[in-house]
Order: sequence, then C-alpha cells, then structure tokens
Amino acid sequence: MNEADFIAALTRLSLHPGARGFEDDCAVLEFGGETLILTHDAMAEGTHFRADADIADVAWKLVASNLSDLAAKGAQPVGVLLGYCLGSDDQSFLQGLSQALEAFDTPLLGGDTIKADGQRVFGLTAIGKASANPVPSRGGAKVGDGIYVTGTLGRAMLGYEGDEDHLEAFNRPSPRLSEGQALAPHVSAMMDISDGLLLDAYRLAKASKVTLAIDSEAVPVAQPGRRDDALRWGDDYELLFTLPEDTNPPIDATRIGQVEPLGFAPLLLDDNPILNAQGLGYEHS
Amino acid sequence: MNEADFIAALTRLSLHPGARGFEDDCAVLEFGGETLILTHDAMAEGTHFRADADIADVAWKLVASNLSDLAAKGAQPVGVLLGYCLGSDDQSFLQGLSQALEAFDTPLLGGDTIKADGQRVFGLTAIGKASANPVPSRGGAKVGDGIYVTGTLGRAMLGYEGDEDHLEAFNRPSPRLSEGQALAPHVSAMMDISDGLLLDAYRLAKASKVTLAIDSEAVPVAQPGRRDDALRWGDDYELLFTLPEDTNPPIDATRIGQVEPLGFAPLLLDDNPILNAQGLGYEHS
Repeated sequence: MNEADFIAALTRLSLHPGARGFEDDCAVLEFGGETLILTHDAMAEGTHFRADADIADVAWKLVASNLSDLAAKGAQPVGVLLGYCLGSDDQSFLQGLSQALEAFDTPLLGGDTIKADGQRVFGLTAIGKASANPVPSRGGAKVGDGIYVTGTLGRAMLGYEGDEDHLEAFNRPSPRLSEGQALAPHVSAMMDISDGLLLDAYRLAKASKVTLAIDSEAVPVAQPGRRDDALRWGDDYELLFTLPEDTNPPIDATRIGQVEPLGFAPLLLDDNPILNAQGLGYEHS
Repeated sequence: MNEADFIAALTRLSLHPGARGFEDDCAVLEFGGETLILTHDAMAEGTHFRADADIADVAWKLVASNLSDLAAKGAQPVGVLLGYCLGSDDQSFLQGLSQALEAFDTPLLGGDTIKADGQRVFGLTAIGKASANPVPSRGGAKVGDGIYVTGTLGRAMLGYEGDEDHLEAFNRPSPRLSEGQALAPHVSAMMDISDGLLLDAYRLAKASKVTLAIDSEAVPVAQPGRRDDALRWGDDYELLFTLPEDTNPPIDATRIGQVEPLGFAPLLLDDNPILNAQGLGYEHS
C-alpha cells in the first residue's frame, strides 16, 4: 500500500471524533474544560533525512515539524514525547533536541528509547492546548475570503541547495507558534505549508470545498528567479490562512489570492486551473 | 550510549513536571481540571519482534503494551496516535490494529505514516484519563504493605516457546485496564510487569525506597517447573501493586510478599538479597 491507501484504510477503523477523519494535521478533543491538540510526526533515515545529515539538525526539525502542526491550530505547546532509536551520534541528537525544546519553550514529557539495527526512525508526539475556540481547521475557507501566507518562501529550498544565507531556514526552521495563536481567533481556515504552498493550498481548497485563486507574483519568495520552485518546495513551516474580506491579519503576512466558489479545479494559479495534486509539492510515497 | 545513559541524559533537559523525572511509565499532568496520562512505546524489527513475526500480532502488542502502561495508572484510554512504517504486510497490520482497538474499546486519534527502507519501527502514543487521584506511581509502597500480582506468570514465555495453550498470551496479551481502574483508588504503588516480575519489583522498590520481600513459591506460575524463568520473563502485562496491610484487593490477585524497611538490597527473594538488577528480567540494551 502507499501512504494514501494506508491512511484511507485507517479512516475505516474506529476513529475518535477528535481525529477529524484524518483530514487535518492534528487531533482536536475536549478534555476536562479545555481543548487538547495532539499530533505525531515520524522521520526516517533515507526518506526524511540523509544518512550523513547532522543529527542535531534532524532532532531540531523533528521538534519544529510537530510544533508547526500545533501552530496551525493556534495551540500553545504543552510538551512532547519522543520515540528514539539509539545510534552512534546520540550526544549530538540530544544537543539539537535540547536547543529546540529551549527555543520553543516546550518541555519533554516522556517517550521511549530503543535499540534498532539499520536505518533509524524517530517519532515525536506533540501535545498542545488550544488558545481559541473553535480551533482552526483546513475546512473553513469561505467564498470571498482573502488568502494569506506568512514569511518568505523558498528559503528552505535555497538552504538545502547550500546557499549560506538560507542554511538556517533549512536546518533550523522555526514554527510560527506566536503567529498561529494570534491568528487563530480570526482565520476561517489555517494550515502549515510544510509540504509546499501549492500542494497544501490544494488540500485546504479540497477540505473547504472551495477554489483558491492564487496570484503567484504576489507570493513573497527568497529568489524571484526560482518562484515556481519556491511554490512547490516544502519545509518552509510558514502558515497559510484565509480571512474574511474585511479582516486584516493581526501579524505580518502577505495576501496572495482570494477564495472563489468551487469551480472545476480546487486551485487556480494565475487563472490556470490545477486539477490534481500531482507535482504540486512534496508527496510522501 | 546505551538506553540507560540516553535516558539519564534526557532527564537533564527541560522536563515537564508531569514527566515524573522519567521514573514512571507514563507522564501525568493536569489539563482542564482533569488528569491526563500519556505514554509512548516503540517497537523495532529485530529488537522487539522478529522479521518473520505475524505483523497482525505485532500491531496488537504495540497497542496492548501502551495500554498496559495506562492500566498501571488506573487510567481509562482516550485514544492512540500511530507512527507507522509502510511494508509488504500493511493489510495484516491494519487487521491486528483494528482488532486490538476494538477489544480495548480505544479509538484512533491520528498519527503519521511513512516510507522507510530496511527494518521497520512502529511507535504508539496512548492518551488516557485518570480515574483516581492521586494517580498511582511506582514510588508509594510503604513498610508493612502487602505485595500483590494479578494473573498467572510465565504464560507469555510458554507461548513464545510454542506451547499451544499459551500462544495467545504471547501473541495477543490483554492489558489489565479494568483491574487497574478498580485498584487505583486503593494501591500505595502500582506498575505493570512487562519486563518481568523481579526486574519490575526491583524498580518499584528503588522508586519507593523500600525493600520488597517476595516469596517465590507464592507467585502463581503457569508451569511450576519453570518458576525461576517465569519470574524473570517479561511480556505478561500483569499488574504488580502494594496495598496497606488491612486492605483486601478489590479484584482477583495473589499476595506474594511484604514491603520491608529499606535494607541493603531493594529485593529479598526467599530471604536472599538481590543487590542489582542484572539478570533479573528483560533489560533493553
């Protein structure tokens, strides 16, 4: 099975209502009198990082990618649980982990450390507390809303390619936690764009049953000559969100388009219909 | 680093108070006026299961081992998040997962599905809600308390060795969820014995700063000729707990000893002092 088939099969099991049918990045559930936000991301050597990667950076990104999912819900991190496979560079992993937890003010709650041969797999579960109710989802964009993105795209791509100015964006990304919390009470829909702007915009459009019309020239990119690539590359950990027409974003963000009634394509890029998600961004196979 | 060194290093990072210094199997934290119980266990091919294992059984045990940690806290399962590496037997994994979730009335909350080459690693995070306050820990055993264990030990061992009568105990263990909830308001200390009775009793004694005096003949075992092995083999997923002298267990359980003042060994087995944990049970290296 591929990832999509497996996930489709999982949705046929006994799902918690808070799982949101797996159509969101996090589970959202009432617990006591608060709302709990839960997410789990895994990273495997060979698939998500190279065998020669600096494992301190891998540890940082494991934390950042999970916290980015919490950011997209406007959640405040409570703590993380780590699933760790021992290796030859544990000290370095600990250093990156420690730096990320300090940087994002997130404590360790627990986890499991195991011995495993061969390529390594790391898992992290992040626990958050919702700051706004209802908790933003991918599914709430309304016709007429403005479409916005935080930050400048393509920085992680340039860093991956070795551009010294953008190495940090690739190796040590920062989830938009405070921005997510500031946005949560206002947005009609929100998600992070860790798989690439266009692919994630496509998903938001599908979940909201609307068409997103995006003006590619409006998207802030780190290198204008690489605009097309920047729209498709992932790992930027910025936030994509929609706001009612009369609402201005409470944080720095750029308007990149407008929500239209569902047409025959979920996405219009400079008026060109995009009918399927293939080639739009980073798809796990 | 080995597992113990890595965990010791983790405790020097920023820990949530609910992490209990990693001296317990679960994190325990107040959330929204209730008490949240969190645990994460990982299983790797080659370390925790053989490459030729029935992956449906592996899925079941992944769920059971995590829920057993919740059981030891007297918690009611809320749901689980799965970290899954795709393979050639995904359908079979789904079947075992589905059966376990149904059997233990626990829904799926989310997770991550990834592609990974080589040996596979699965992770599961279980979320529970405490049923009693304070939540039982390993650290509360008091001098004079009786020591008890649920069930019959050595069944998983015999099943592993191919004994038809005990195959299910090895392949499809049941966490003691209802027993844990019934016991939680009464016990002074509790934990599961998935790493073996003696090793886990040693840990409970260390955490409680007492000596546990255990009468090996009193321990119910599936095959009396294999008593010594049964006390050291893990995977039984029974509960070990201590109760004040005048309290009877509210469920079926066997008294196997008594809590004594901390002597020079944490464990007395038939009056023989056991000074260190080596060789007592299943130790992850």
